[in-house]
Amino acid sequence: MVEGAKSVAELLASDFVIETVVGTDVFLASHAKVLSERGVEALAASELELAAAGSYQTNQAALAVARMRPNQLPQIASGDYVLVLDDIRDPGNLGTIVRTADWYGIAAIIASPETADFYNPKTIAASMGSFARVQVYYAALPDFLSSRHVVYGAFLDGTDVRTTHWNTAGGCIVIGNEANGISTDVARCVSHRITIPRTGRAESLNAAIATAVVLDNLRRSL
Amino acid sequence: MVEGAKSVAELLASDFVIETVVGTDVFLASHAKVLSERGVEALAASELELAAAGSYQTNQAALAVARMRPNQLPQIASGDYVLVLDDIRDPGNLGTIVRTADWYGIAAIIASPETADFYNPKTIAASMGSFARVQVYYAALPDFLSSRHVVYGAFLDGTDVRTTHWNTAGGCIVIGNEANGISTDVARCVSHRITIPRTGRAESLNAAIATAVVLDNLRRSL
Repeated sequence: MVEGAKSVAELLASDFVIETVVGTDVFLASHAKVLSERGVEALAASELELAAAGSYQTNQAALAVARMRPNQLPQIASGDYVLVLDDIRDPGNLGTIVRTADWYGIAAIIASPETADFYNPKTIAASMGSFARVQVYYAALPDFLSSRHVVYGAFLDGTDVRTTHWNTAGGCIVIGNEANGISTDVARCVSHRITIPRTGRAESLNAAIATAVVLDNLRRSL
Repeated sequence: MVEGAKSVAELLASDFVIETVVGTDVFLASHAKVLSERGVEALAASELELAAAGSYQTNQAALAVARMRPNQLPQIASGDYVLVLDDIRDPGNLGTIVRTADWYGIAAIIASPETADFYNPKTIAASMGSFARVQVYYAALPDFLSSRHVVYGAFLDGTDVRTTHWNTAGGCIVIGNEANGISTDVARCVSHRITIPRTGRAESLNAAIATAVVLDNLRRSL
C-alpha cells in the first residue's frame, strides 16, 4: 500500500503493477490520463475516508494498492556502485536510505534478510517516492559478497572516507546495523574499511546519516 | 525523562540537574559512584517495570527524570559554527540532527519556535546521548540572524557545497523544514545559498541527511 499524493504519483510513473488507486476527486482528475492509460481501477474518496483507511493522518489525497515485485537481483552494470545493508532494522531508516541512494544515483540495494521490510508503510513513506526507482534485493550477504572483490565497509576505525580511493569499475558499500555495526561474517568480505572522520564527541552516526556521508564522498570522485 | 542505559549514563556525566534515576540492580551498581557523588535519588526496578514506565519497550535498564535547562543563548566563540533549524517538525529528525551536530563538533543549535521539542522522548532517544552535549536555544530566527553576517543556507538551487568557501571566523548554517525548506523570512537573512549536488533522481534529501552532508563538507575545510 502506497500513501500520499506524492508517493502515489511516483507509483503511477513507475513499472509497478497497480491494482487500485483511491483518491480525492482533485487527485483523480489531475492524474486521469495516466490512470486511464494504465487501466488502473480508480475510486473516489473524501480526505477523511482516506485518512481513516491509511496509516497516516496527514497528506491524504491518495492511496494505492500495488503488487510487490519478486525478490530478484537487480541488473548491476560495470561502474555501478551497490549499497549493501547489514541488518538495518528501522523501517524509517531504510526508507531514508532508499531516498538518499536515489539522490546519489544508486539504483540497487542488497539487504540482509533481517533488514526491515521494503514494503513497510514507514519505509515507503520515508523514501518519499524513491521506492519506485531503487530496487532492494534481500539475500544472505556473505553469499552475495563472496563473488565481489571491491567491498567498502563503514566502520568506526577504517581509513578516512575523504581520502578513499574509489574503484572506477564500481563496487559495494556495506552499512551496518544501527546498534552493532557490520556483523563478523560480513566484515570478512570487506576489502576496504572506511570511516567518517569525527570532530566532536558523539560515539557514532545514525546508519542513514553514515550512508549519506559515504555516498557524498563517493560522488565527489565518481 | 531520559530512557535507556546509554542515555541515562550520558545524563549522569552531564551538568543537567537530575531528580531521580530508576534502574535495574545491575545498572545502579555499575553507576553507584556517580549516583552517590551527585546525590541523585536512585530507585531499583525490574526490566518489566521499566518497560512499562517508559515510552519504549526495548533497552530498558534505566530511566531518569532531570530538570529542563532554561532557554538561553549558548556561548558562541569566534570561529564557531552554529546550526540554525527553521521548523524541523519531526522529533526523531531533531534528535538525529543533535547527534550529527555532536559528531561534527557543533555545540549550539538555534531552533525556530515551531521546531520539535528538544525534550520530546523521541528527540532525546534519537540523539543517542548527544542531548547532554549540544545546546538547543529556541528563538525567532529573523531576530537571531539579523545580527549575523555570515549565514549559509541549504537550498535546492544554491552554489555547490563542495566548493563553498567557509568563513574561518565561523558562521551560521540554516537547515529548512522537511516539506517546505527555508521560509521566506529566514531566507532573507541568508548570505550564502548552498546546495548538495545530486547525481540521481530523488527530489530532495531528508533534513537530517542534508545537515550531515553540509557539516561533513564544512569539516573538510575547517
